[in-house]
Amino acid sequence: MILPMQKKMTNDTLKQVAIELEKVPAAALFSHVHPDGDSLGSMLGLGLALEKLGTKIYLYNAGPIPESLKFLPGVERIADSISQELPETIIFIDCAEFDRVEINGLSKDDLMGKKVINIDHHISNDYFGTINWVDSQAAASGEMIYRLVRKLGIKICKDIAVNLYTAIITDTGRFSFSNTTPKSFKIAAELVKTGIDLVHINNILFEEKSLAQTRLLYKALSNLELFHEGTIAIITLSKNDFETSGAEENLSEGLVNYARNIEKVEAAALLKEIDYSDIKVSFRSNSWIDVNKVAQKLGGGGHVRASGCTINLPFAEAKQKVIFALEEALSIEWGS
Amino acid sequence: MILPMQKKMTNDTLKQVAIELEKVPAAALFSHVHPDGDSLGSMLGLGLALEKLGTKIYLYNAGPIPESLKFLPGVERIADSISQELPETIIFIDCAEFDRVEINGLSKDDLMGKKVINIDHHISNDYFGTINWVDSQAAASGEMIYRLVRKLGIKICKDIAVNLYTAIITDTGRFSFSNTTPKSFKIAAELVKTGIDLVHINNILFEEKSLAQTRLLYKALSNLELFHEGTIAIITLSKNDFETSGAEENLSEGLVNYARNIEKVEAAALLKEIDYSDIKVSFRSNSWIDVNKVAQKLGGGGHVRASGCTINLPFAEAKQKVIFALEEALSIEWGS
Repeated sequence: MILPMQKKMTNDTLKQVAIELEKVPAAALFSHVHPDGDSLGSMLGLGLALEKLGTKIYLYNAGPIPESLKFLPGVERIADSISQELPETIIFIDCAEFDRVEINGLSKDDLMGKKVINIDHHISNDYFGTINWVDSQAAASGEMIYRLVRKLGIKICKDIAVNLYTAIITDTGRFSFSNTTPKSFKIAAELVKTGIDLVHINNILFEEKSLAQTRLLYKALSNLELFHEGTIAIITLSKNDFETSGAEENLSEGLVNYARNIEKVEAAALLKEIDYSDIKVSFRSNSWIDVNKVAQKLGGGGHVRASGCTINLPFAEAKQKVIFALEEALSIEWGS
Repeated sequence: MILPMQKKMTNDTLKQVAIELEKVPAAALFSHVHPDGDSLGSMLGLGLALEKLGTKIYLYNAGPIPESLKFLPGVERIADSISQELPETIIFIDCAEFDRVEINGLSKDDLMGKKVINIDHHISNDYFGTINWVDSQAAASGEMIYRLVRKLGIKICKDIAVNLYTAIITDTGRFSFSNTTPKSFKIAAELVKTGIDLVHINNILFEEKSLAQTRLLYKALSNLELFHEGTIAIITLSKNDFETSGAEENLSEGLVNYARNIEKVEAAALLKEIDYSDIKVSFRSNSWIDVNKVAQKLGGGGHVRASGCTINLPFAEAKQKVIFALEEALSIEWGS
């Protein structure tokens, strides 16, 4: 629950950011490396909006830009390194800390003497800006940008709406994650009123798969195994599975859910053989197993329901270790 | 685009329905056979709301109730046949015509002399009631029930909200189908304010799969084939595939999308061997092929982007026929 004082503070900061931006002649916008829909959508949404005020804008992201986000209006204008002197105003969006930017040509020293505006919804934000507008109650930075653009009195056109809608649906998993609030729906209602093609956007973001991705899913399902009376599900993907599918490693994202979503399964893991004795593991749990603890025992970490680690053992041994760790967690937690 | 006159008419009818229901001592509610989230959620949402007005309610559905909808509050009170005399007021929800009810113990004659209220969002509704409130602009009947419940001044509790939220997210495909409007989002915002557990509901409806379903997906992917330079994708599921997966035929729902969603694919088909020489085919297309025409040529029909037919030929021959029909459609339409 948000406290009234916190709410007032974030509202005051929103006002401060708006006052700052309505008069600015030029601004450079940054978002985090390995961008997702929220970082790119929020940055582009704000950038296109500021342009309507006559601001000269520069857009930066270290990339790589995922194929599925190349439809975002304005994405072609994003540069992956700094090629000119930075303006006086620098805006960071969706970056919990300065180091998340990781862009060639920008060091923390370059920010000296600049007005650094830090807009983010991550609770872990370390307030590295000169103005820090951090609202961890926002499901996506895109929700904050929506409020800012409205505060600035800028009319939301289709291009801005596509960007902000994308930001929100990616960070809320189409309004299905626990961060989704009534506000997320209300903002979506306003964005959809501009006439954006939500079927097309949803298809690109959530439905369309490359042939390689489909082949990788097939491999994942063919390697799916259940243990511990069906309460543990493990998917393995060997180096050979990636090669024969023609899929890059990042295309395995989300596959662990095919294991986690099976009825009766409490804990799931996806093991990827990056190289010999270099096994990347993702853990998920459904309702009570703390997979953060499981991952920590294997030298990794994360959250209670989603975590990961890297195991430097041959594939088969790593798999045994993961099964053992999960079985142990299930037994111990049942016992307690 | 809705005409002002139409809009006024549906508003007037809403008012008429509300006036009718606020004074009614008892009502029987019906929704369509083979129920989905909208028919059950809308019926239960209205039923629970009327109870708050002191109305005695009777809930009927011929079923079968899908496993994934057994969590709906009140679902255990639904009867699958008529066991007592019907009250004076009968409400049909989400039924385009009387025949969609298909329930034991109810014939059209039983409606004689009764007040029949027909609430539906299907454009094909044939106005079989004494009061017909049909709003084809509503994404789900659940949206109409939300408006009705508000009009009746009934406070929406969590149980009602879970039912109406389920109605809306199933009929809009989590706000991703073209029927989704700003109103869908606004209603969702209000429903979510009651504190319903949307993560849990989304998991049950869209994520959780039985082991048999997962096995069937694996079979489907292993039988996936591309034709016509990757623009046609076909999935076949033999009787044996269903048997070895332990999956009922209805668990194949949605699998055709794994074919349709592959990059570059324009037309997809899923062929299911129900029995020897009894092949059920579902067609989908992405942007320009009219699969209604394709299905019609094979004795079936449907919509431009989703259609189906039954072919009474051995499995391999049926498959050849489907491939040929799709290739022909692709060639002809390219040529024109």
